[in-house]
Amino acid sequence: MPVTTDNSTTAMVGYSIYEKNKLPISVNCLDDKLIIEWDDGAQSEYHYLWLRDNCHCEQCITSLTREQIFEICDVPFTIKPSNANISPEHELQITWDFENHHSRYLAGWLEQHCYTKASREARQLKPTLWDRQQISQYLPTHQYQDIMSDSQALLNWLYEVRDYGISIVKNVDTSENTVKKVAERISFIRETNFGTIFDVVAKNNANSAAYTTLRLPLHTDLPTRELQPGLQFLHCLVNDAQGGESILVDGFKIAQYIRENYPDDFIALTTLSMSFYNKDKASDYRFDSPAISVNNQGEVVEVRLANFLRGPIAIAADKMQAIYAGYRRFMLLARQERFQFFHRLNAGDLLVFDNRRVLHSRNAFSLEQGHRHLQGCYVDRDELLSRIRVLERELA
Amino acid sequence: MPVTTDNSTTAMVGYSIYEKNKLPISVNCLDDKLIIEWDDGAQSEYHYLWLRDNCHCEQCITSLTREQIFEICDVPFTIKPSNANISPEHELQITWDFENHHSRYLAGWLEQHCYTKASREARQLKPTLWDRQQISQYLPTHQYQDIMSDSQALLNWLYEVRDYGISIVKNVDTSENTVKKVAERISFIRETNFGTIFDVVAKNNANSAAYTTLRLPLHTDLPTRELQPGLQFLHCLVNDAQGGESILVDGFKIAQYIRENYPDDFIALTTLSMSFYNKDKASDYRFDSPAISVNNQGEVVEVRLANFLRGPIAIAADKMQAIYAGYRRFMLLARQERFQFFHRLNAGDLLVFDNRRVLHSRNAFSLEQGHRHLQGCYVDRDELLSRIRVLERELA
Repeated sequence: MPVTTDNSTTAMVGYSIYEKNKLPISVNCLDDKLIIEWDDGAQSEYHYLWLRDNCHCEQCITSLTREQIFEICDVPFTIKPSNANISPEHELQITWDFENHHSRYLAGWLEQHCYTKASREARQLKPTLWDRQQISQYLPTHQYQDIMSDSQALLNWLYEVRDYGISIVKNVDTSENTVKKVAERISFIRETNFGTIFDVVAKNNANSAAYTTLRLPLHTDLPTRELQPGLQFLHCLVNDAQGGESILVDGFKIAQYIRENYPDDFIALTTLSMSFYNKDKASDYRFDSPAISVNNQGEVVEVRLANFLRGPIAIAADKMQAIYAGYRRFMLLARQERFQFFHRLNAGDLLVFDNRRVLHSRNAFSLEQGHRHLQGCYVDRDELLSRIRVLERELA
Repeated sequence: MPVTTDNSTTAMVGYSIYEKNKLPISVNCLDDKLIIEWDDGAQSEYHYLWLRDNCHCEQCITSLTREQIFEICDVPFTIKPSNANISPEHELQITWDFENHHSRYLAGWLEQHCYTKASREARQLKPTLWDRQQISQYLPTHQYQDIMSDSQALLNWLYEVRDYGISIVKNVDTSENTVKKVAERISFIRETNFGTIFDVVAKNNANSAAYTTLRLPLHTDLPTRELQPGLQFLHCLVNDAQGGESILVDGFKIAQYIRENYPDDFIALTTLSMSFYNKDKASDYRFDSPAISVNNQGEVVEVRLANFLRGPIAIAADKMQAIYAGYRRFMLLARQERFQFFHRLNAGDLLVFDNRRVLHSRNAFSLEQGHRHLQGCYVDRDELLSRIRVLERELA
């Protein structure tokens, strides 16, 4: 991988640019790691195995695909520097005691990948949680023409989609399949058994409550799938029906509220598996999962709930009352108006939300006054985050 | 939902058929649950909330979509039967103390959904683990004509794909895109940034080591994606190259071996996050996850490893030596021949394996003797399991 370095404040490794905000001034070698002291007084530690693993040289990274060919299990677990120093170009330079291999690390790259607790936390995404009042004060709203034609406007929109988990795009072309064009500003569409683009219209022989005029309770889509679809797009082409308002609730806000106020329910919701079933003629999906998922830092990363797609819970009998208590707590809170955002989609509106965070529902509607036609599709979180990184690179 | 019942041994609820293997003979109501005694002497307990939640009546389940409209948070947490008895048709019949609602439960349905520990364990899928010797003694092998034309042959193949995580289909038509036809015997294809069907040929400007003639180390595909693709299909159209043998390792077998012999490494591998990066010109995927995932019953459900797609690990400094020890342990074991299955794909062979379980690699190859062309695609585990359930229903 070509490493370019100069006296400017930035440098490139592979496709990424690393700003040099501070400079390393000394390196101190210990048993299994070294400590770098920076010119702002901070210290960072880097383990030898980690450093050797992350060597950027052309022997370790193939220039053909920029993928790592060196394998860390091919050196001793006890590998150490025979020499380590800070170069005049502010690089950490190491010669290893195994095969005399030589490695160089840019200051900006080291800073960016420092793994002290503070550095890791600073890099973590922080969702902006909302309730009825908060989302009414600021609803992320973007213009179709802008996001379709301008990379910076696109990036601004995607940041808000990522952080708020909700946004409205206005003045969207109301011709069919426009939702696909908007979604493809991010990436390819996540296909499901409902196809790639789905039409939300009331129809006979509905295989989902979505395709009726019925009220839908608050839910996430496709909880029966191991990976629930990430972003959901709902584009309104026509809406002359009475009723049918969308109701959205930030599931992460509810989860936080339960965590703070009802810790037993939070434990039940994050550790005991609900069952989700969706049996149709040609498919039979089932998945068991807690209603709230936390990552291994304990942060809430997903909610999964749809009353009409639940199956019989199959957990230890002595936990059955606890899971029902937790589930009821969640649903009863989500039904409270203080958490609910009401929105009527009109022709030309496109609602985008994180289906793994924001519960959605709609009121029943009547078609006596006119027609109602939405088109929807899904794009996964991976694609959103990848697109944001590529745009950041392009616009840097 | 129509419930049909008669004196035969089976009965239907929705799309499913429930066999009546034993009969309930008495019901004993306690505080928050009831106990059924069966004619074989066994007992099952069912909580009142669970029973009320699973009422099959047409008020609770809309006949239109067979989805549940009743919501358990609309009844008191302390709901109880005012009456419960076993009917002459061997149904559990309950009248509830709230709204006088009446519910009926078929014996076969109750038996099938019993949640004692023994019943839950009996319903759990058990993968058949393998090493070199075991897979050499029995390699699941199926015929293209059979799986394409016969539902029972298809189901038999899918059972083996599910349980062994590997299978070979022989005598596959070698025309292009046949892999898609085979995959679609299960369901739709999982699209990725490599498209739906990918051609594995050596090419210039490769954006993945897969598209070179290089040796590939053992790996799972797309560990940079939150949900790694489930099944991987590799169809060999032509193989006149020298070398390029496939090497496959059952990652669940390695995980089990580590769990039994190196418990500290197992803890590191299941709790500490590796980082997976794949930076290309138009995409930039990253995902952090432990290399081994266990579900909330402690069973290994996934491995995620690809040396060439790793990024700098970002975990607490005091865990850094432990994660490297665990990762090296896994890779060094996977490199041992006793765990490796070698297979040369010839024209007309189609290899299918669970990409979230089986690590794959290939030797370097030379094109001096001839051409090599594979076509591949992915289908997710959800689709496999759904297809199995639908086939079971159709063939019952």
